[in-house]
Amino acid sequence: MSGPSFLEKWQQASSERQSLLCVGLDPELDRLPAPLRGRGPEALVRFCREIVEATLPYACAYKPNLAFFEALGPQGWSLLREVLAAIPPQVPVIADAKRGDIGHTARAYATAIFEQLGCDAVTVQPYLGYDGVQPFLAYHEKLAFVLCRTSNPGAGDFQDLLVQSASGEAQARPLYLAVAERVRQWQERHGNCGLVAGATYPRELAAIRERCPTLPLLVPGVGAQGGELEAAVRAGLDEHGGGMLIAVSRAILYADGGSDYALAAGEAARRLRAAINQARGS
Amino acid sequence: MSGPSFLEKWQQASSERQSLLCVGLDPELDRLPAPLRGRGPEALVRFCREIVEATLPYACAYKPNLAFFEALGPQGWSLLREVLAAIPPQVPVIADAKRGDIGHTARAYATAIFEQLGCDAVTVQPYLGYDGVQPFLAYHEKLAFVLCRTSNPGAGDFQDLLVQSASGEAQARPLYLAVAERVRQWQERHGNCGLVAGATYPRELAAIRERCPTLPLLVPGVGAQGGELEAAVRAGLDEHGGGMLIAVSRAILYADGGSDYALAAGEAARRLRAAINQARGS
Repeated sequence: MSGPSFLEKWQQASSERQSLLCVGLDPELDRLPAPLRGRGPEALVRFCREIVEATLPYACAYKPNLAFFEALGPQGWSLLREVLAAIPPQVPVIADAKRGDIGHTARAYATAIFEQLGCDAVTVQPYLGYDGVQPFLAYHEKLAFVLCRTSNPGAGDFQDLLVQSASGEAQARPLYLAVAERVRQWQERHGNCGLVAGATYPRELAAIRERCPTLPLLVPGVGAQGGELEAAVRAGLDEHGGGMLIAVSRAILYADGGSDYALAAGEAARRLRAAINQARGS
Repeated sequence: MSGPSFLEKWQQASSERQSLLCVGLDPELDRLPAPLRGRGPEALVRFCREIVEATLPYACAYKPNLAFFEALGPQGWSLLREVLAAIPPQVPVIADAKRGDIGHTARAYATAIFEQLGCDAVTVQPYLGYDGVQPFLAYHEKLAFVLCRTSNPGAGDFQDLLVQSASGEAQARPLYLAVAERVRQWQERHGNCGLVAGATYPRELAAIRERCPTLPLLVPGVGAQGGELEAAVRAGLDEHGGGMLIAVSRAILYADGGSDYALAAGEAARRLRAAINQARGS
C-alpha cells in the first residue's frame, strides 16, 4: 500500500530535474493575477494548478501553506485537495502547516495531513518537545521538518536566547542550535527528521548545517522576504552538494500580475533553479 | 459591527455561571459513545452539540481543538462550524489551534480563525516571536493565548532549558518564563494576550502566575492528562480569585461511553465546576 517515501520522491525529482527548488503555494484571493481576480475560490484553484503545471519542469517539491487555504473558509481544505490533485504523485508535497500539540492531539494532526491530505512531509513546531513531534515521525515514509531558525524579523525573539547546556559543561548556545541538536538525536532514532532554516539568516543557517551535516534543510525566505540566494545555498548544502530545498513562493506566484502569470511563474522557477545550481557549482 | 470582546464575554459567562470551567471539544470518531459510533461525521457533530447543551450551565467557555476536526478530512472545518453554531453567541469560544507562522502567513491564520470561524480567542505558538503573534493581537476584541508551559510529558524538552537574560545581569531562568515575561510586555502594548500553562505542572504554573499577576491563563491537563485540580487552581488564580480557565476535554466528553453520555457530561461538568469553586474558596 505504501508507495515511495518522501526521501525517495525528493531524491528522484531533485535528480531528474537537477533542482533544489521547492515551489511554495501561498495563494491569496486579493493577489490573484488580474484575469482571475474577483472570480472566487475556484479561480484560486485554477491559478495554483496553472502554477504547478508551469513550474513542474523546475521543481523538486511543492509546499502549500495551509494558512492560505484555511483563510478561504470551511471549503479551504477541499480547495487544497483540488490543488494537490494537480501535482503528479511522484513529486513530493510538503504541507507547510507548522503544527504542534500534545501527543494525543498531534496524532490527529498527523492523520489530517498524511492520511486525509496525503502529503509527503510536514513542517512542525518544536516548542512542545519530543512527544509533540513523534506522532509525525511515526509515519516512517513521511518526513517532519522541525522549525529551527525561521526566516521572519522576530525569529530571534526566542530562537536566539542563549541556553545553557544540560551538563553545564559546554558553552551556552542559542535556542535554535539546541533545537537542532535535539532534532539530530531524534533523527538517529527515526531517520525522517528535517529542519526549517530561513535563507534570510545565512550565518545561522551555516551554524545549523555545521551541527547537522546530514539533516535535510527546508530553506524559505528567498524572494519576497529578501533572503540572498547564493549565500543561503552555500550555507545550507550538505557535503554532497544537496540536502536542502530552497522554498520560494511569492516571487514565483506573483512574477507577473497580468495574463502571463503562468508563463512568468515558469520562467521565474527556471531562473531560480539555474541560480541555485550556479551557487551549488561555485 | 463588533460585538462584545472575548474578555467581556468571558467575564460575563464566568460571573453568571460562577464558573472557571472551559469545556474542550476534542471529538474522535472511534471514541464516540456506543449509540453514535460507526454513524459517520454527522454523528460527531450531534455528539458535540449534545455535549454543549448539557454542559452549558456550567461552562464559562468552549475550546474546540481544530486537530480533531481536521482529522475528519476536508469537511472537518464545515463540521466544526456546525458545532460552533450550537454555542450561544454570548459564550466565548477559544480555537485551540496552536498556530504560528511568519507575519504574512499568521495574518491568514487569524483571518481563518477569527473571521471565517468567528472564534473569540485562539491558542498560538511563541517560537516565531512577536511578528508571528502580532497579527492575532491586531484583532483588539479577540485574545491570543500564547503557549508557555504545556501540559505534556515532553513539555520540558525545550521549555525548561535555562536561558540567560539579555543583560547578563539577572539569573538564568527557564525558557517558559522568558516567554511569560515577553508576553507580559506584549500585553502592555496590546491588552489581549494570555498564556497557556498546564495543570500537570502546578509549580511551573505558580511561577508563571507570579511573573504575570494579571494575564489570563488557559490551563489544560486536568482529567485524562492527570493534572491535579486543586493544586492547579491554587497556583493559577489571580488576586481576585479568577483570571484563569480550567480546560477539561476527555473527562467530560467521555464521562460515559453508553447512551447516557450527555447526562454524564453535564454531571461531570457540574462536579468539575464545584471542585474548582471549592479550590477557589479554600
